[in-house]
Amino acid sequence: MRIKPNIEDKRLTRKIFGFNELLKRTKLDVIEEKPLSLFLNDQEIVTMMTINDHPKFLALGYLLNQNMINSRTKINKVEYHEDLMTVVVRTKKPVDYQKKLKKKTLTSGCAQGTLFGDIMESFKKIKFKDIPKLKMSWIYELSKKINLMPSLYLKAGAIHGCVLCEKNKPLVYMEDVGRHNAIDKIAGYMFVKKVKPGNKIFYTTGRLTSEMVIKAVKMKIPIVISRSGFTAWGVELARKANLTLIGRAKGKRFIILSGEKRLDEF
Amino acid sequence: MRIKPNIEDKRLTRKIFGFNELLKRTKLDVIEEKPLSLFLNDQEIVTMMTINDHPKFLALGYLLNQNMINSRTKINKVEYHEDLMTVVVRTKKPVDYQKKLKKKTLTSGCAQGTLFGDIMESFKKIKFKDIPKLKMSWIYELSKKINLMPSLYLKAGAIHGCVLCEKNKPLVYMEDVGRHNAIDKIAGYMFVKKVKPGNKIFYTTGRLTSEMVIKAVKMKIPIVISRSGFTAWGVELARKANLTLIGRAKGKRFIILSGEKRLDEF
Repeated sequence: MRIKPNIEDKRLTRKIFGFNELLKRTKLDVIEEKPLSLFLNDQEIVTMMTINDHPKFLALGYLLNQNMINSRTKINKVEYHEDLMTVVVRTKKPVDYQKKLKKKTLTSGCAQGTLFGDIMESFKKIKFKDIPKLKMSWIYELSKKINLMPSLYLKAGAIHGCVLCEKNKPLVYMEDVGRHNAIDKIAGYMFVKKVKPGNKIFYTTGRLTSEMVIKAVKMKIPIVISRSGFTAWGVELARKANLTLIGRAKGKRFIILSGEKRLDEF
Repeated sequence: MRIKPNIEDKRLTRKIFGFNELLKRTKLDVIEEKPLSLFLNDQEIVTMMTINDHPKFLALGYLLNQNMINSRTKINKVEYHEDLMTVVVRTKKPVDYQKKLKKKTLTSGCAQGTLFGDIMESFKKIKFKDIPKLKMSWIYELSKKINLMPSLYLKAGAIHGCVLCEKNKPLVYMEDVGRHNAIDKIAGYMFVKKVKPGNKIFYTTGRLTSEMVIKAVKMKIPIVISRSGFTAWGVELARKANLTLIGRAKGKRFIILSGEKRLDEF
């Protein structure tokens, strides 16, 4: 595996004391969560709550998944300042996003609102082809491998995991307090390492909401598996993009909501 | 109970078909999730993904919890336009937030980053008094009542619940695709109905992250219970505010992380 959860990293968890239901003092591992401010060139974009293990991947992935940069954007440098809890992505050329932002702030105020339309526009352009490439056994094997692997989730809880996989092999396992951060870190990793998405599978412990489906589609990964549930709009978007969407994958059980032709038993 | 999950409301869930692991066609209830755009007077603030059952409470609660309005702000009107999926909060006077936003957008871009400092400032001013007022039996009774009550969670999954309680009684049970929306709807309800927070308990099915603790403290509710886990910063903030924080409340088990003196067995 290229990246595993780093359960030995002392910056990611903390030991604290609480009292259990018998009022007995109990020692626990809890997950750290820190505010990280992201700048794109001279523009402050957002403050993210993160475990902060991969700030540079997170920064790039966030910008990619929010359509603020794209896969062709030339990056000069990504600076992480631990003391300031700041990460700055510097592009070779000024990015369009900056113009757009400056124009729209007076009427819009928050980038989130402004960008929503843009993201849906770019979403509509992607439709996956119908090549069968998912064995049912991979679903079981991936779930088992991921769930049994030592992780911050097993150590401290209160965290989500996202895993980039190929066939039955987990390749990059990222965790974070928000599943949107975990997926953004994978997007950042894929961008930096130039990972081809077409033969990959994306596994997540979190729910399949519209946000997760939009991000997976933007990342051009055709198959998404979750052990949690899904929303109506998440399913609808997956069907539009012909993404294979599998939810409630637990043990030998699962539900396939979209793109079932890609499953080779169909 | 004043507000219960409305499982009969046909706008909140949808029936869809999927295939299970035996490749058998299966009918499922799934939760709806819609983008709702929030305006404060003439300013677009954010687009929220919500089940959209209480857009007005959500709008007011969001603005309160983000410090964009406060408990003394006079509201002229809250307009919900279903066709436009827009909710507009109109205040009697222009709110300071608008000035702040106009001044800061050029350097900041997104309200989220800008507001973070403000929120922490107002957080520091609140410290709960140490009056014991939590019986251990209430924790069990609340968990049981809430978990057994018919809900969108039990019907369709992929949703979080937040419940405003008094002693062992659930009063207002809100659900939403994000736990931050569910808590904001409760904040909006409390604002509109002028609910006193000092003797209330806040129960959530979601994790106790810094965001949830900050919101509970801003809402001045001294006791927070979750059936899920917690982050280090969530615990740290709860201790600073002397909030009673209880996590992993399942059956007869729980962990109390902060404000244990409020538990009357201590």
